Amino acid sequence: MSFDALQRRIDGLSNPSAVGLDTTAELIPPLILASSGSLAEAFVRFNRGLIDALRDVVPAVKPQSAFYEALGPVGAEVLRDTAEYAKKRGMYVILDAKRGDVDSTAEAYAEAYLGGGSEYTVDAMTVNGYLGSDGILPFLRVAEERDKAIFVLIKTSNPSSGELQDLESGGERIYERLGGILEKLAGDNTGEYGYSRLGGVVGATYPEELRALRKKLRRTFFLVPGYGAQGGGAKDAAGAFDGDGRGAVVSSSRAIIGAWKKSGGGEDFAEAAREAALRMRGELRKELGL
Amino acid sequence: MSFDALQRRIDGLSNPSAVGLDTTAELIPPLILASSGSLAEAFVRFNRGLIDALRDVVPAVKPQSAFYEALGPVGAEVLRDTAEYAKKRGMYVILDAKRGDVDSTAEAYAEAYLGGGSEYTVDAMTVNGYLGSDGILPFLRVAEERDKAIFVLIKTSNPSSGELQDLESGGERIYERLGGILEKLAGDNTGEYGYSRLGGVVGATYPEELRALRKKLRRTFFLVPGYGAQGGGAKDAAGAFDGDGRGAVVSSSRAIIGAWKKSGGGEDFAEAAREAALRMRGELRKELGL
Repeated sequence: MSFDALQRRIDGLSNPSAVGLDTTAELIPPLILASSGSLAEAFVRFNRGLIDALRDVVPAVKPQSAFYEALGPVGAEVLRDTAEYAKKRGMYVILDAKRGDVDSTAEAYAEAYLGGGSEYTVDAMTVNGYLGSDGILPFLRVAEERDKAIFVLIKTSNPSSGELQDLESGGERIYERLGGILEKLAGDNTGEYGYSRLGGVVGATYPEELRALRKKLRRTFFLVPGYGAQGGGAKDAAGAFDGDGRGAVVSSSRAIIGAWKKSGGGEDFAEAAREAALRMRGELRKELGL
Repeated sequence: MSFDALQRRIDGLSNPSAVGLDTTAELIPPLILASSGSLAEAFVRFNRGLIDALRDVVPAVKPQSAFYEALGPVGAEVLRDTAEYAKKRGMYVILDAKRGDVDSTAEAYAEAYLGGGSEYTVDAMTVNGYLGSDGILPFLRVAEERDKAIFVLIKTSNPSSGELQDLESGGERIYERLGGILEKLAGDNTGEYGYSRLGGVVGATYPEELRALRKKLRRTFFLVPGYGAQGGGAKDAAGAFDGDGRGAVVSSSRAIIGAWKKSGGGEDFAEAAREAALRMRGELRKELGL
């Protein structure tokens, strides 16, 4: 689904956030690990528990592909199960895969996760655009055909993101140039809220850049990671939103799904995640005046 | 294994090339498709046939992850089978996955394909470095622990690669800056032939850039795609090599694995691939004086 579907769900829950399902053995409570026949089974049980606890609070989940791939081939099945479980319970599913390639290869990645024959019920995926338009258009084409969406990395949340992304060329920074390319590629094909289906990833850890990009990239829906464990707060993320408090979704992972680690042994992991998600919702609502 | 293992195999076969296993339904002969119970089975049979025909001619195979992911979860098993089959027959296996992320996520990708617990018998993988050093070091760390290697995208072979990669900043282009970062990150830790385990991807379609990069990045082993179907020739690729004719591997995909399409119905697909690989070997040998 395009970002209209995501924005509607955000409006309905009055919560512009996504929970990152960055599941690892360390984040799964010992009780679940001990009573599961395999790590893959523990992943499934943990993720399903999180989804059940979060579905009426948080509009979207964002599974991080790396942690599923690290399980070996069975990880792809776990990812499929998680996406399907979340989708059936009404959540918007963003696959954080940061794929990037060109031509028929980029198309294969897009078909793999957004295509008509895909076994993954994914609504949007993240894309790395370092290869240029050739690497973005095939994803956009499949997204358009299937009413889905993509988020291209613009300015990432990590400390060294500036090494390449912040370099200045011809009066603008590389990430600004990339943002401009995205706006051009998306064209005037916007949805109900004025956003195209070609979104961008901008870290909450760079609030000034975020604010400036929001003003410049009017049709680009933002995915904003770096909230919580990475140090970004509601004030930092606020710059991602437009005057109507729309146009962005803020993502937090470990601070939500690993919240049980602060309170005990993990018997209450789902409740702890729900409470952490409610706190995050409260912080964002307050900051955005929702 | 580090690039020493690859270089030794290249020297042994006197052939600095890799065959890209960019397998798709369109590239598999109808006979195999019709007699296989599933597309996954057809992939396995086609790839195994190619490996059997190429193992004593070509030192390395490069499966393109996208085409396996496009099969759905079963694709991960096909990829595992292909990597294992090639490895057991003595080939060096480069996974073209262009993964890129930071910190624990990048580490998860590295562990997934290069780590001690990985089910994939992969010797090296490709990495997208747009996120900066944070996104490269975790891969390098795992590669060092396990005597494996990575290739980071520097200057890609596609027509629009210049949109970001060629932008000039502070007197150098973005891809040159990235190349410099790679040389710095790799440090003095080089192998038998003077190359680190932190290689780079540079397209054969940009021969001048390739030649200049070879002179500047003395410790960076190059993976050179774009040969054959994408238009690069032996003369173009020659600039990737050092004075001893070492330090690079040139990759061709469709022109080799789809060579049967020029000659008939595909009954002889393996033989056609072998002949195309021998032709490419001849072209490279002639150009490099091997």
